Amino acid sequence: MTREHADLNEEPSRASKHFVDHDETPEDLEDLALGDDYALNPEYVRKVIDAADRGDAERLRELVGALRSEDVADLMGFLTADYREEVVPCLDSETLAEVISELDDNLREEVLETVHPTALAKALEELDSDDAADVVDDLEGEKRAQVLAAMDADDRAAVEASLSYEDETAGRLMQREVLAAPQFWTVGQTIDHVRNAGDDLPELFFDVYIVDPAYRPIGAAPVSTLLRAKRETSLAEIMEPVTEITVDMDQEEVGYTFNKYHLISAPVVDAGGRLVGQITVDDIVGVIQEEGEEDILALAGVSDAGRDAGVWDVARSRLPWLVVNTLTAATAASVIGAFQEEIAQLVTLAILMPVVASLGGNAGTQTLAVAVRALASRELNAANAVRIVLREMAVGLVNGGVLAVIMGVATFAVFQDWKLCLTIGLALIINLFVAALAGILVPLTLDKLDRDPAVSSSVFVTFTTDFMGFLSFLGLAGVLLL
Amino acid sequence: MTREHADLNEEPSRASKHFVDHDETPEDLEDLALGDDYALNPEYVRKVIDAADRGDAERLRELVGALRSEDVADLMGFLTADYREEVVPCLDSETLAEVISELDDNLREEVLETVHPTALAKALEELDSDDAADVVDDLEGEKRAQVLAAMDADDRAAVEASLSYEDETAGRLMQREVLAAPQFWTVGQTIDHVRNAGDDLPELFFDVYIVDPAYRPIGAAPVSTLLRAKRETSLAEIMEPVTEITVDMDQEEVGYTFNKYHLISAPVVDAGGRLVGQITVDDIVGVIQEEGEEDILALAGVSDAGRDAGVWDVARSRLPWLVVNTLTAATAASVIGAFQEEIAQLVTLAILMPVVASLGGNAGTQTLAVAVRALASRELNAANAVRIVLREMAVGLVNGGVLAVIMGVATFAVFQDWKLCLTIGLALIINLFVAALAGILVPLTLDKLDRDPAVSSSVFVTFTTDFMGFLSFLGLAGVLLL
Repeated sequence: MTREHADLNEEPSRASKHFVDHDETPEDLEDLALGDDYALNPEYVRKVIDAADRGDAERLRELVGALRSEDVADLMGFLTADYREEVVPCLDSETLAEVISELDDNLREEVLETVHPTALAKALEELDSDDAADVVDDLEGEKRAQVLAAMDADDRAAVEASLSYEDETAGRLMQREVLAAPQFWTVGQTIDHVRNAGDDLPELFFDVYIVDPAYRPIGAAPVSTLLRAKRETSLAEIMEPVTEITVDMDQEEVGYTFNKYHLISAPVVDAGGRLVGQITVDDIVGVIQEEGEEDILALAGVSDAGRDAGVWDVARSRLPWLVVNTLTAATAASVIGAFQEEIAQLVTLAILMPVVASLGGNAGTQTLAVAVRALASRELNAANAVRIVLREMAVGLVNGGVLAVIMGVATFAVFQDWKLCLTIGLALIINLFVAALAGILVPLTLDKLDRDPAVSSSVFVTFTTDFMGFLSFLGLAGVLLL
Repeated sequence: MTREHADLNEEPSRASKHFVDHDETPEDLEDLALGDDYALNPEYVRKVIDAADRGDAERLRELVGALRSEDVADLMGFLTADYREEVVPCLDSETLAEVISELDDNLREEVLETVHPTALAKALEELDSDDAADVVDDLEGEKRAQVLAAMDADDRAAVEASLSYEDETAGRLMQREVLAAPQFWTVGQTIDHVRNAGDDLPELFFDVYIVDPAYRPIGAAPVSTLLRAKRETSLAEIMEPVTEITVDMDQEEVGYTFNKYHLISAPVVDAGGRLVGQITVDDIVGVIQEEGEEDILALAGVSDAGRDAGVWDVARSRLPWLVVNTLTAATAASVIGAFQEEIAQLVTLAILMPVVASLGGNAGTQTLAVAVRALASRELNAANAVRIVLREMAVGLVNGGVLAVIMGVATFAVFQDWKLCLTIGLALIINLFVAALAGILVPLTLDKLDRDPAVSSSVFVTFTTDFMGFLSFLGLAGVLLL
């Protein structure tokens, strides 16, 4: 595990020699597998491919066996389907379960198809109920029924309970096993309970939840506090206020709550306020990462087709927005059509008009990105919306003014026409002002309508700035120049 | 704490009456303060502003007192500087410290200016060393010296040690206090040690690190495992492999490691592999959130000026990229200049050319967003780069073909000129192919050069698609049409 001792520099030359080193210890292999940042080394992927190409099953098993399940999942993402099929048989049932639960959706579906229902059921029993449910959710009708039927009754019940909650809610994220105790218990009683309870407790837990007789959480104590307190201390003495999550809360809100209050775990309650499970922060880290990635992709108008998707799937994931954009771009271009005579008289207009549209688009995108971020982190709401909108308008005017001067001077230098300078300067000020307005009002409006402001904001904003860019520049040119 | 009992619908009508309700219990206030998603209610911010406007210090203290420190920090972000100044005196030393550590950088600087060095020193002593160091780092020369001098010697040493590491590294994120034990200790011995150690232990801990005689981590055990095991069990029996973080690791890599292996805490080691501290996941959640936000802003070419920044600061944070863009847009426009004669002969070209550029820009941005996300999550590296580049090229051709058909048909419907259709169709295929290439190669190249691919990729990509959009369409028009 001591990564700093790995001699990674040695690796490329070894790999290029393409011969088999059977004298490596498992520790050597692990050091070769991962970089200093724990990311999988490309050279290791090549080693795996080489072993598979040579049909060297023993070496393949050794290479895969040296990896943790998270790294095997990672490796799968870098392999093509044929190689993945050779890796799966190298995994024991527990590792297979963990790998499946780590895989991206489309890879997971592919791997699931190759595993026999009974083997899969056995593998799923090794997982926490929330992770197992996640996998079962990806199974098609008949296979799902077969796998559930082959599972242990308790595990099946847990999975079915989890699946009864909607996707991306707290109910799906939570695990049902929790450590709960009444407030009159002492620390000693609680520890004894933990030692005896065995399987009813979660594999890992970080807080004991103190519940009232109706099983409603009234407080919590971190396990480290439990460890530190004297055995005779009552839980009532050490308990702290608790932040409850309701079972139907959206996962993005759960992430916000965990991040805001720096939670490690939180009790999940049903509509009646009764404790039904817990969410731990390790699941939330993934959620926060995912939500951030979704926003990046949504702003660019693209959905994630998945790591190993084919050309057609990827193309299809990008087409909808491109088609919408064809429509908006054509509409904006129709503005130009209305000014054909002006352009025919002065072709220079055709040269400068895209600059006005482009700068507006960029300024609008800047405002939009800041607004989407602020909305996601709840830093922008009704309490400061007016102030922020006014500030953006002022920023639009200021930056419009600065760009007007720069482009004005440049235009004069090239075309020696002060009226043209005035036209492009005014058009830039107007378009950057419009960009600022669109960049802040579009996401605010979508948010108000309970729509995700990251999705489809861009198309509105760039349409507005294209349209207004052409209209303001060509319109002003018509008035001032011709 | 039972949020679901809050009658939030009642709130707007109450607030609009603008009279003082002194019959609310602190619980009522807390329910009024927060929405179901634990975000601060805009109405509550208005209540605070009302109280401050009326000069009702008692009510203000009551409203602020009902909030947790994270919510006070949130509140501050929604207030203007004048109101913030009135809120600060309502906070006791511990809450003040927590609020300061939660505040955004520019708000923090402002609040720090108003707090006396001695009071600040006292407040900082309440924080974990990593959080305190973070605050001290924001203090200017003389005030920093005064605050450090006023701090307790141990706390000062911890802060100075933390500051000796570079910003955004593991050394800065870690806290020095850890629970470490030799492998021959029993669970009972370890628990007794925890009960007696007191202040030398972190306030919260989730793992005990098992160290060798040179204080190098050789394993770890979760606290819940410690609780569950029998007192006579030795740590060697229950310890699991441990994922070490080196003290100079970049925080983004630390976040990747925590996310990948679902870590709750991890030991930090120095260059010699010796345990020097620990990082806990609650700090990492913030890091992951931050890194995601940074990528969104970087892709849009904007830096975060801060929540309460003035018009000038915000304008300045957006200008650099706009100015660069003026340059690139003007350069792309100069291509149009080279085709003035063609445009003068057929003004229709001026109408259609921005559509080619715009669609290319959008397709390039889509590819770029996917590539940046894949690089950030280490899903794209030398092992699959060639495959992904080839796939993007194919996607560019496919989508270029689809858009060529759509725009070709639309162009024929409007202009009844099949040569014009052919021109725009071919130009779209060329530009979407170029967009795909730029969208994947630019971030890959920046990553290879150890530059952040999210920063400045956009400007390269949109320049390329603008330039090639104009060049391919007008160039083809010159050959095919005139």
